[in-house]
Amino acid sequence: MKPSMSVLGTGRMGSALARALLQAGYRTTVWNRTREKAEPLTALGATLAPTVRQAIDASEIVIVNVSDYAATAALLRANDVAPGLAGKLIVELTSGTPEGARETSGWAATHGAQYIDGAILATPDFIGTDAGTILLSGALEPFTANETVFRALGGNVQHIGTEPGRANALDSALLALMWGALFGGLHAIAVCRAEDIDVGELGRQWKATAPVVEGLVADLIKRTGAGRFASDAETLSSISPHYGAFQHLKDLMEARSIDRTVVDGYDAIFSRAIASGHLHDDFAALSQFMGKA
Amino acid sequence: MKPSMSVLGTGRMGSALARALLQAGYRTTVWNRTREKAEPLTALGATLAPTVRQAIDASEIVIVNVSDYAATAALLRANDVAPGLAGKLIVELTSGTPEGARETSGWAATHGAQYIDGAILATPDFIGTDAGTILLSGALEPFTANETVFRALGGNVQHIGTEPGRANALDSALLALMWGALFGGLHAIAVCRAEDIDVGELGRQWKATAPVVEGLVADLIKRTGAGRFASDAETLSSISPHYGAFQHLKDLMEARSIDRTVVDGYDAIFSRAIASGHLHDDFAALSQFMGKA
Repeated sequence: MKPSMSVLGTGRMGSALARALLQAGYRTTVWNRTREKAEPLTALGATLAPTVRQAIDASEIVIVNVSDYAATAALLRANDVAPGLAGKLIVELTSGTPEGARETSGWAATHGAQYIDGAILATPDFIGTDAGTILLSGALEPFTANETVFRALGGNVQHIGTEPGRANALDSALLALMWGALFGGLHAIAVCRAEDIDVGELGRQWKATAPVVEGLVADLIKRTGAGRFASDAETLSSISPHYGAFQHLKDLMEARSIDRTVVDGYDAIFSRAIASGHLHDDFAALSQFMGKA
Repeated sequence: MKPSMSVLGTGRMGSALARALLQAGYRTTVWNRTREKAEPLTALGATLAPTVRQAIDASEIVIVNVSDYAATAALLRANDVAPGLAGKLIVELTSGTPEGARETSGWAATHGAQYIDGAILATPDFIGTDAGTILLSGALEPFTANETVFRALGGNVQHIGTEPGRANALDSALLALMWGALFGGLHAIAVCRAEDIDVGELGRQWKATAPVVEGLVADLIKRTGAGRFASDAETLSSISPHYGAFQHLKDLMEARSIDRTVVDGYDAIFSRAIASGHLHDDFAALSQFMGKA
């Protein structure tokens, strides 16, 4: 039988989660601090709970998706709320640190609740689709028992370990990759504007060159995993040509008064590796120089 | 009739260019400062020229692919070389600044040579394939007359404007995107190592979430082009949840002693936009805050 579901927090993402559950036929209760953001979901069949406690009492599984763990704590640890959690499964999908997940997991246990921590690696438009990725960590049993529920939220749901902090840790790693791409995009846009190049042309050539960049990132991950830092016959690009071309980007940004704080950060990493004799090693050798300077 | 080709500079990339030309049936002469790097190409049919001047005299089109424009200048501007360039088409594929391309273009004209500046947006393994991208700028006539030659080097060859600096400018913009992705990868790897997560798992989830990131970058470029910075119904993510999740990455990096110079650079851009009242605007609003602080 399908468990009943509550969703605490119905911002852009929480609403997408509730919609996916309703779509999959789950009895779904919603609560949001500002009631107006939850109301549109009632038209899709959700029940609107007036209080957090009522939302918790209504369902077997409680999904939390608020702004951070402090907000989660403020909701769940209130005196009139916490006792209601005994016997429930809490699924914490708020983004946070591994430490926050570990601490919340411990707190839930003392209140007799099962706990799974998760991280959503998707924009709301991917929720409920095959390409929706949600990483989960913590107790395996409640995951296995409710795998169908999780699959309704995203086709790529992965339980990646029993240590509750693991999902948030991998989430942060993947977000680092995402922000790398997005801030790289912001720099690219700034260069195009300064040089009077149509941003549409940037978009077209970004798509055309995406396979090259994907190949480089995949190779970076593979080589780092294998510890293959010396240049060899399969090296796509060693540090030397990267660093040569990088000077031109820096020069151009300087000439056009574009903010260089991020690329100066790249420079610091390049420079440490080169000073340690890695100029002609594979780009992956930089991974040995990511510690605090 | 197929023009004869010379390639000056046969490192990893120059060798790939020469191989693609030989493969396509062009009579190809090669020269390299250290002769040993050019010699393997003779087995594929290339002629090895002992001097730069002899390489230039041998062909109608001279491709230059050395380390930078200073190296190009040292080769071509020598007293015994420059007079040989009259009537030739120089194709400068060395990476450099827009200013370097403009200056070299002007110099070539005074020596009676045609000039096309280019930038290769590919690793050597993509050269000669349909997915090989080469951007070209400068005089249109020699490009049109020799388009078949360029297509032999890469399926996606684009003449993007008559201003000679344009290819290098767009190259730098696209490299900024590439380094964003690669340094993002280095940060992701550092986080996984610190949190004892298998780098292979990172690779799998990076692939699974790539469509989300691609969607965000495409949207960033599209919105910036259209100047749509306010959040609207199609907003994938506003600055606020980005910045919230970003704190967790910073906290984790701090706790694990991972170098934060790059992400502190992101923070500076986020902070300027937020201080100017854009917290709830679309992520694309950050593009207005990329000027030197």
